[in-house]
Amino acid sequence: MALRCLNNMRSVIGLIQQLKVMRRSISIAAQTLNKHSSIPAVRVFSGIQPTGVPHLGNYLGALESWVGLQENYSSILYSIVDLHSITVPQDPAQLRKNILDVTASLLACGIDPSRVILFQQSQVSEHAELCWILGCLTSMPRLRHLPQWKIKSKQKNEGSVGLYTYPVLQAADILLYRSTHVPVGEDQVQHLELAQDTARIFNNQYGEIFPEPQALLSSMRKVKSLRDPTSKMSKSDSQKLATVHLTDSPEDIVLKFRKAVTDFTSEVTYDPERRPGVSNLVAIHAAVTGLSVEAVVEQAHGLDTARYKQVVADTVVQKLTPIRDQIQKLRADVGYLETVLAHGASRARELAAPVLRQVQKLVGFC
Amino acid sequence: MALRCLNNMRSVIGLIQQLKVMRRSISIAAQTLNKHSSIPAVRVFSGIQPTGVPHLGNYLGALESWVGLQENYSSILYSIVDLHSITVPQDPAQLRKNILDVTASLLACGIDPSRVILFQQSQVSEHAELCWILGCLTSMPRLRHLPQWKIKSKQKNEGSVGLYTYPVLQAADILLYRSTHVPVGEDQVQHLELAQDTARIFNNQYGEIFPEPQALLSSMRKVKSLRDPTSKMSKSDSQKLATVHLTDSPEDIVLKFRKAVTDFTSEVTYDPERRPGVSNLVAIHAAVTGLSVEAVVEQAHGLDTARYKQVVADTVVQKLTPIRDQIQKLRADVGYLETVLAHGASRARELAAPVLRQVQKLVGFC
Repeated sequence: MALRCLNNMRSVIGLIQQLKVMRRSISIAAQTLNKHSSIPAVRVFSGIQPTGVPHLGNYLGALESWVGLQENYSSILYSIVDLHSITVPQDPAQLRKNILDVTASLLACGIDPSRVILFQQSQVSEHAELCWILGCLTSMPRLRHLPQWKIKSKQKNEGSVGLYTYPVLQAADILLYRSTHVPVGEDQVQHLELAQDTARIFNNQYGEIFPEPQALLSSMRKVKSLRDPTSKMSKSDSQKLATVHLTDSPEDIVLKFRKAVTDFTSEVTYDPERRPGVSNLVAIHAAVTGLSVEAVVEQAHGLDTARYKQVVADTVVQKLTPIRDQIQKLRADVGYLETVLAHGASRARELAAPVLRQVQKLVGFC
Repeated sequence: MALRCLNNMRSVIGLIQQLKVMRRSISIAAQTLNKHSSIPAVRVFSGIQPTGVPHLGNYLGALESWVGLQENYSSILYSIVDLHSITVPQDPAQLRKNILDVTASLLACGIDPSRVILFQQSQVSEHAELCWILGCLTSMPRLRHLPQWKIKSKQKNEGSVGLYTYPVLQAADILLYRSTHVPVGEDQVQHLELAQDTARIFNNQYGEIFPEPQALLSSMRKVKSLRDPTSKMSKSDSQKLATVHLTDSPEDIVLKFRKAVTDFTSEVTYDPERRPGVSNLVAIHAAVTGLSVEAVVEQAHGLDTARYKQVVADTVVQKLTPIRDQIQKLRADVGYLETVLAHGASRARELAAPVLRQVQKLVGFC
């Protein structure tokens, strides 16, 4: 009964959110109504890099909300962006494994391939062709200060053409499906702005075809490293205890939380500025249980941080165990994962081909 | 009888050329034999920008030799590179018209779509996807000094991402078909070197797949402007009398040659350094008649330049009249031109898809 009630509440909240989105979309569509008769429906697009099994930060920061979006939007594309991943060096065998692992993880987290189009970017060549066309409308200096290039080319002390033009491919990913909404984190806002600018430039030059994609700021949770709570949890962290992976065993999870860096105050409070370590635990606890930060702190009243770490670890174990089991099961069935991806690519191509065709007509190719 | 004899000679010359090419190809293939079992056959690739009806310089400098290559090579792809054309601004309606006009012109010049694959680059999305993959192996500084960017970005005082990455797409065009030979002019040598470097880099990193394409230096004729014989004949010349188009009427051709800039010496000699104007006429005369420069100068003995201009104009009119008539006929049959291009694209895709698939496997996408 409680479950049914919760589901009903979810439906109502979903409906409200959907109505809000529809209103925004109608306003966008109205701007283009004079010139463009076929107005795209509300459509969500997002991409994930194939870095293998995601970590807790990926899950709480993005994937959980990706799953939630399925309730609210009827047209969603989630792309495993392998063309983006090779903008830095990759080992081919590892990359292939990572693509399958991320597919298994997305399905295990609750992404439903019958409700969304889950596909691998490289299997839809239209992405790259639209990227080329949009690149002919993008000035070289426009890309110089975008985060992707600034950060990664410095880290490697060099950079490829692919790394430099990465945001143009992102714009193509989004616009190829006439997407109206894109879930983005703070670090992607500038890249979304490029996609918006590019849509505007194309529409002005060739005729209205692309909606200006809007940010869906639904996934702003930032999970921090368990060893350095001032930096984000990251897959590439050299400290093995810093990052909780979705496939970690219960023992590993408990160990990582036990060793989590906190401070010398034993009380549990939420103060990210002055007490980043314990506040990170509180934030994880709140996210995993779906409770508010205040409720979680209230629950922890009387516990010292050592005891609290155990509590948080237990809730994380409880949350991740079914996901972990499902990932292991799916990983073992490569044929199924490949079928899911092939089906997704075929559906994505069905949407992409007519849009690229229309772009080609507007540009003068056909 | 004379015609049959000529055809026989052509066949023999063709056979000798083919054997030479085969020998070179076997040497390339031998380098990769250990690692790579499926050695590509000899394959020629070249591209032409859709700038509309070509001029006499295009015809004598490249197209005539393209027609000749059909005799010597069994696998040839000629691509109308529309993706390249939009690296500088284009009017869509004009671009579409130019694509059809260049198609009509190629056919009228003797390109035989049953013997070569004649297709439009944008209709084979694999070009752009391979371009993306190769761009991830190309460092940004590598492109900075290539002619395309250096010349055109300065002319326009800015440049797009497309213009900067133009040579990477050229490399993809060539490598996508595992082409072994590319007819190039002097101005394209650096771009071919990039394609060779890129093939080597890919092969080293991922495994042997691409032959290093070799230059076919068969088309080095340089026809000069009739109004300024120190610069190349060009479609975009602002002086209307400088350029002879394949569709010019006989009257226009005669007028343009009559007004051709020469010097104050009336004798006909060949001395490109000191007498560029009359030497350009001699070179055109030789190219159009298939005679040597010496034979043409010998024939012109006793004529002054004014009379000689009429002789050259007459031979050009004679050469271009059937081509012009055929262009006009084909231009009127847009349906036929579209069928030829659709058929070409379909055949090109048949070759491109398995190569891209193999590239994707080597990279780790599938």
